[in-house]
Amino acid sequence: MRIAYDGSRFHGWQKQPGKRTVQGVLEEALERVCAVPVSLEGTSRTDAGVHALGQCATLRGNFGIPVERIPFAANNLLADAMILGAEEKPEGFHARFSAAGKTYVYRFAIAPPHPVFLRNYASLLANAPNTGNMVEAAKYMEGTHDFACFQAAGGTPRETTVRTVFAVRVREGMGTDPGGNSYDTIEAEVTGDGFLYNMVRIMAGTLADVGFGKLAPNDVNRMIASKDRKEAGPTAPPQGLYLREVYFDAGRIK
Amino acid sequence: MRIAYDGSRFHGWQKQPGKRTVQGVLEEALERVCAVPVSLEGTSRTDAGVHALGQCATLRGNFGIPVERIPFAANNLLADAMILGAEEKPEGFHARFSAAGKTYVYRFAIAPPHPVFLRNYASLLANAPNTGNMVEAAKYMEGTHDFACFQAAGGTPRETTVRTVFAVRVREGMGTDPGGNSYDTIEAEVTGDGFLYNMVRIMAGTLADVGFGKLAPNDVNRMIASKDRKEAGPTAPPQGLYLREVYFDAGRIK
Repeated sequence: MRIAYDGSRFHGWQKQPGKRTVQGVLEEALERVCAVPVSLEGTSRTDAGVHALGQCATLRGNFGIPVERIPFAANNLLADAMILGAEEKPEGFHARFSAAGKTYVYRFAIAPPHPVFLRNYASLLANAPNTGNMVEAAKYMEGTHDFACFQAAGGTPRETTVRTVFAVRVREGMGTDPGGNSYDTIEAEVTGDGFLYNMVRIMAGTLADVGFGKLAPNDVNRMIASKDRKEAGPTAPPQGLYLREVYFDAGRIK
Repeated sequence: MRIAYDGSRFHGWQKQPGKRTVQGVLEEALERVCAVPVSLEGTSRTDAGVHALGQCATLRGNFGIPVERIPFAANNLLADAMILGAEEKPEGFHARFSAAGKTYVYRFAIAPPHPVFLRNYASLLANAPNTGNMVEAAKYMEGTHDFACFQAAGGTPRETTVRTVFAVRVREGMGTDPGGNSYDTIEAEVTGDGFLYNMVRIMAGTLADVGFGKLAPNDVNRMIASKDRKEAGPTAPPQGLYLREVYFDAGRIK
């Protein structure tokens, strides 16, 4: 299943007792639709406040309802999460372990005229950073590296902190707010074969520090070599982060 | 004071025991800033879910803090409401009774690619209505009329249901969602000297019915003449409504 959600009112993806989570809300809706207990496995355990445009999840079982009907029926029971599509996959397919790559987008909004409407959907900047420097720094983040410097404490322990970042694209853009006013945005689109805990948010926070001159673009090389979280920039806030796409075919990664 | 708020998580403007309201949250912040009990009078008692880009409110008293400092200090304590500015007014000025007119905007979004991000900020339409017919119907809503047909039951009783609607402007536009995708919008901008309970939402619901061919544009004349709520269209949902501006000088109404 492909899933979109507004992360604002969720305590993240992963089910937790007594908390409203995406996994919990989706499983509840799917249990009503399928009339059997279900268990979802998501590709990414997004944090509280993080959004998804294309999270993926596997639902195993025999449901007596055609797979293509499931999204429509479940969406009637959902508000801030939505199943975009569902298809059958061969036995052994797993939303997390079968994923070959993912794209996240981190969005900054520069001095939006009505910040109250964007506080959950972007990281708000009071001034415009130097985007050219951010573009340069982004290049140094690409490639296969030990990204320990971009890993926050507290995540699931991993066997290795080596990951391949296929591309970090920093782009200027525009948004419109509900008042009809436009504002400038900067988006960092990050595609990789996998990410460490809070990795994209730390990359985004580092890019912002570069944009505001607190770090030089090529400081990125030094921080990656250091493998030390303290050398990288701050963790950018969760509301700017969107899981845009999950790739299961390495050949289709853009 | 001029105030903007995202109405999504408020039970409307007006203070109610045990509920989170804009007035309640603002008074709490202002009491901390001013260190005395305060009481706010808003121009419009917006309903739950309704937003404001330019609500106004009066705060009476002697606070020992310069008026122009109040917004900055209070905004530090606020998240989904924001004081845009504050100025001293002569004795006798009242945000509600001194208002000469108001502009509301009602926003429809047509089949946005990521509806989960817009459910609180627009009325979502699955298909494009006939905007030309809506523009025509809007013209029939202008002028000084007894607008009883556009008044919902349950509001504060009013002496008269005659109001002057200076302009109803229906416009096509575009929005962008957090996924970076654009979508078409239709906005109805309604300016009048005052509005009955749910009046703009019923006007918006009527315009939508016209756009989808359930009503003809000139049916508006008949429904106004009938003074009967049952002759008008449905009440459009609150999340599409924005209080954009309050006018205190009749000469400046646009």
